Amino acid sequence: MKSIFDKVSIVLVSTTHPGNIGAAARAMKTMSLKNLRLVNPLNFPSAEASVRAAGADDVLAECKQFSNLEEAIKDCDLVIGTSARIRGIPWPMIHPRECAKKISKKAYSSIAIVFGRESSGLSNEELQLCNMVLKIPTNSEYNSLNLAAAVQIICYEMYLVVSDINTIEYEKNNLVFISQEKMEQFYKNLEDCFIRIGFYDTNKPKKLMHRIRRLFNRAQLYESEWKILHGFISKIQEKTKNNHN
Amino acid sequence: MKSIFDKVSIVLVSTTHPGNIGAAARAMKTMSLKNLRLVNPLNFPSAEASVRAAGADDVLAECKQFSNLEEAIKDCDLVIGTSARIRGIPWPMIHPRECAKKISKKAYSSIAIVFGRESSGLSNEELQLCNMVLKIPTNSEYNSLNLAAAVQIICYEMYLVVSDINTIEYEKNNLVFISQEKMEQFYKNLEDCFIRIGFYDTNKPKKLMHRIRRLFNRAQLYESEWKILHGFISKIQEKTKNNHN
Repeated sequence: MKSIFDKVSIVLVSTTHPGNIGAAARAMKTMSLKNLRLVNPLNFPSAEASVRAAGADDVLAECKQFSNLEEAIKDCDLVIGTSARIRGIPWPMIHPRECAKKISKKAYSSIAIVFGRESSGLSNEELQLCNMVLKIPTNSEYNSLNLAAAVQIICYEMYLVVSDINTIEYEKNNLVFISQEKMEQFYKNLEDCFIRIGFYDTNKPKKLMHRIRRLFNRAQLYESEWKILHGFISKIQEKTKNNHN
Repeated sequence: MKSIFDKVSIVLVSTTHPGNIGAAARAMKTMSLKNLRLVNPLNFPSAEASVRAAGADDVLAECKQFSNLEEAIKDCDLVIGTSARIRGIPWPMIHPRECAKKISKKAYSSIAIVFGRESSGLSNEELQLCNMVLKIPTNSEYNSLNLAAAVQIICYEMYLVVSDINTIEYEKNNLVFISQEKMEQFYKNLEDCFIRIGFYDTNKPKKLMHRIRRLFNRAQLYESEWKILHGFISKIQEKTKNNHN
């Protein structure tokens, strides 16, 4: 089965600044997308596009060019236009997260996400070739998203919906939380330490250990941290043996 | 109460390309953020920063500059560093969505989100000033997110967690779905039409109306669309009166 990354094409219509084409390619590749289609770019290929693409020059090298949007999307069974504003003609509107879910669940075989000109977006005629319109939620007083930034957000949402963010990379961390049993041992040793060095008067406890517990419960110790603190406390206990006897 | 947009500062450490500072300001403003702090920028102020900021030059004009990270974050009660890779020293890691939730729920008064150099990110010493490290999930074979693109994603997640995306703008659309009652009337009239023009043999229905219902149930008609179809069908019914009599 084709993955979402094979199925989805990013289509840029009449892009004015070649730097934006390069930056869009870079944005796509960071999120595992690779199919770029260009409709009538003003200036492409271009050195500026390659510079801004950084290591994503393969996406640029393999992009397809078309003379109009209809041609660019003719093999697609789902075409999503993007727009920065609510149009006069109401069109079914979705936001990026909803769009990503839709793309991942339905049995589409070729999906186009279409971005218009930097200055004026897609024309009404172009929007009418789209099944629906995607709008990125923005500050209502300033919705001027850069083209590549819009591509980045949408590709990011697609990447997340396919990859489970809770398991991808974060668990590689190998951070192991300490058991409650070891924490109890820790509190006992720490309290003993406090007494040995005369920091803690058991007759006037003043919620000291209560506060200590609140602190470490909130912080949740990793095993490696616990080992450090445990070693430190053992050392204090060892050094204060005489005081205690 | 201070809003999340007042509380959060974006901190850029030793940014090399002034264009990235401008693009970051633009990314921030599209998502309603405005507090920008710069630590030792290589080249700022700069014409390129202003050009790339587009209409977000107010964010640049009001940014604060510092000579080191410690100085820049000293008033903050939550400092989140960003990193493109899992570090040798394990550090509590979160992803942007989790980070946005954390920021919005806790009673922090001043939050810094810190972005390192384009080439090498934050140093280990700088990361150790951070409470936790945020990593944007990316293609494991190409994680080269542009600085402003990373700022864009994180600000977008913060904007979404504060603004309810399902109600912000999409309901301004004024699209009204048609009632089931009117749809039943529509199906009845359509079937009548089919019969009148000889398209539909009631003795061999072949699931025609079943398929029609499936189609329109999936599509869900808006009132304005229903009016068009209804008018069309009425017209056919009117024209075929003689045939039927």
